[in-house]
Amino acid sequence: MGTTQLESVPEPKYWHLRTVLSEALDSEFTVGEILPNERDLAARFGVARATLRQALEQLELEGRLQRRRGVGTTVAPPRVGVAVGTEQHVWPGAPGDAWHAADCTTAAPPASVAGLLETADGESVHIVRRSLVTHGQPAAAELLYIPAASVPDLSAIDAPSGAARARAVLRELQRLELEGQDRAVELGSARADDAKELDRLPGAPVLVVTTRFFTEGRTTAVSVATYRADTCRLTFGDSGGVEIHHDPERRAS
Amino acid sequence: MGTTQLESVPEPKYWHLRTVLSEALDSEFTVGEILPNERDLAARFGVARATLRQALEQLELEGRLQRRRGVGTTVAPPRVGVAVGTEQHVWPGAPGDAWHAADCTTAAPPASVAGLLETADGESVHIVRRSLVTHGQPAAAELLYIPAASVPDLSAIDAPSGAARARAVLRELQRLELEGQDRAVELGSARADDAKELDRLPGAPVLVVTTRFFTEGRTTAVSVATYRADTCRLTFGDSGGVEIHHDPERRAS
Repeated sequence: MGTTQLESVPEPKYWHLRTVLSEALDSEFTVGEILPNERDLAARFGVARATLRQALEQLELEGRLQRRRGVGTTVAPPRVGVAVGTEQHVWPGAPGDAWHAADCTTAAPPASVAGLLETADGESVHIVRRSLVTHGQPAAAELLYIPAASVPDLSAIDAPSGAARARAVLRELQRLELEGQDRAVELGSARADDAKELDRLPGAPVLVVTTRFFTEGRTTAVSVATYRADTCRLTFGDSGGVEIHHDPERRAS
Repeated sequence: MGTTQLESVPEPKYWHLRTVLSEALDSEFTVGEILPNERDLAARFGVARATLRQALEQLELEGRLQRRRGVGTTVAPPRVGVAVGTEQHVWPGAPGDAWHAADCTTAAPPASVAGLLETADGESVHIVRRSLVTHGQPAAAELLYIPAASVPDLSAIDAPSGAARARAVLRELQRLELEGQDRAVELGSARADDAKELDRLPGAPVLVVTTRFFTEGRTTAVSVATYRADTCRLTFGDSGGVEIHHDPERRAS
């Protein structure tokens, strides 16, 4: 990293610095390496500490840097690719599903989910909470909303709560024929409960994937999954079984 | 919106205020309505102006509010669903494609894209710039990277630059058999050129969709598309032709 004066640039200073730093990360630093301290960095680039901090925050948001108390700022590993789209329609909890079912409760869903499920106002549904861990790190938290009508035989099963209940609900769900599913991806902010599970602060940027599952032309379940935006890239595999020659560690960003 | 004192809440004040405001937007405001001014809002909720501003910025980032000079802060319309995933593999520029091809240049791609395309270091490729407008608003900007080897007969066509050149490149590309494609979605920040095209400031959060197109087991083209994260939700339609009964204006977030 050379000394670059950033006085005469029309774009915001922190943004130009972010670009310069990003290039330096590519060319001069390796994953896990600790960056020089803020005072040294600010001096080197001829910027105020506040500008430097803004650039570092931006790079952290982009998943290029990690800031940990007691360690300092390190170069983040590439984002982890998390397979979201599948070529086949499968119910949650089907064999090979990497998600971990943690709990199951019964409550009224948010209005937006109730709209998708066409349940009555205030009507309770089963809510299965699941989590996804990749490379030893929390990657995503999911709430899966399942109306009682989708699992009519559930009451016969003796698992009143917890993970066993969650698995029982998913098992019942898998009895339905899955006709189709669609997904939407949008930017969101971690709610307090998700943030805790994802090891982030409330308000941290997340990618929210809403999946609708269809049976007989009706939405029989809705999943709202929250992925860490700093560490995850969502992959929608659809290579048609083609064997691809590539380096999966690279990323286009 | 009633008066709520936020003194004794453990989560960050702005975050709690954001939640309270978000609920108020749902229940008391309509799309396009102008919010009271910052001074009045801060007084009503018993918070400092700085806290209020942080909450408003958060809601703007989430696409709930729009802040426009001379107008004030208005309630944003729901995010627009933009179809990204298709059930069939199609080349860019195929019939029905809503993207507008604006320009075509020749240059070396970023290292990440060169890695996917397996082009030599510094090797130039065709770069087609396209844009997507929905509901009269810029929604996305795309750079489509196509190695010369993917369009070997191109030189015979007499369209040296501009939109005509872009269309010529896409036409040649469509001669190849498209075996498969895959996609990755991740959070990014608008670069200066994209920001201008999307009518945002540099650094604004965007959803970056990287698509690889495969022919004979090789990546024959790579698209890097940048969608406005405040106004767009990306939809991956895969309902299997099932007719769904739902209200598309609702959103689960």
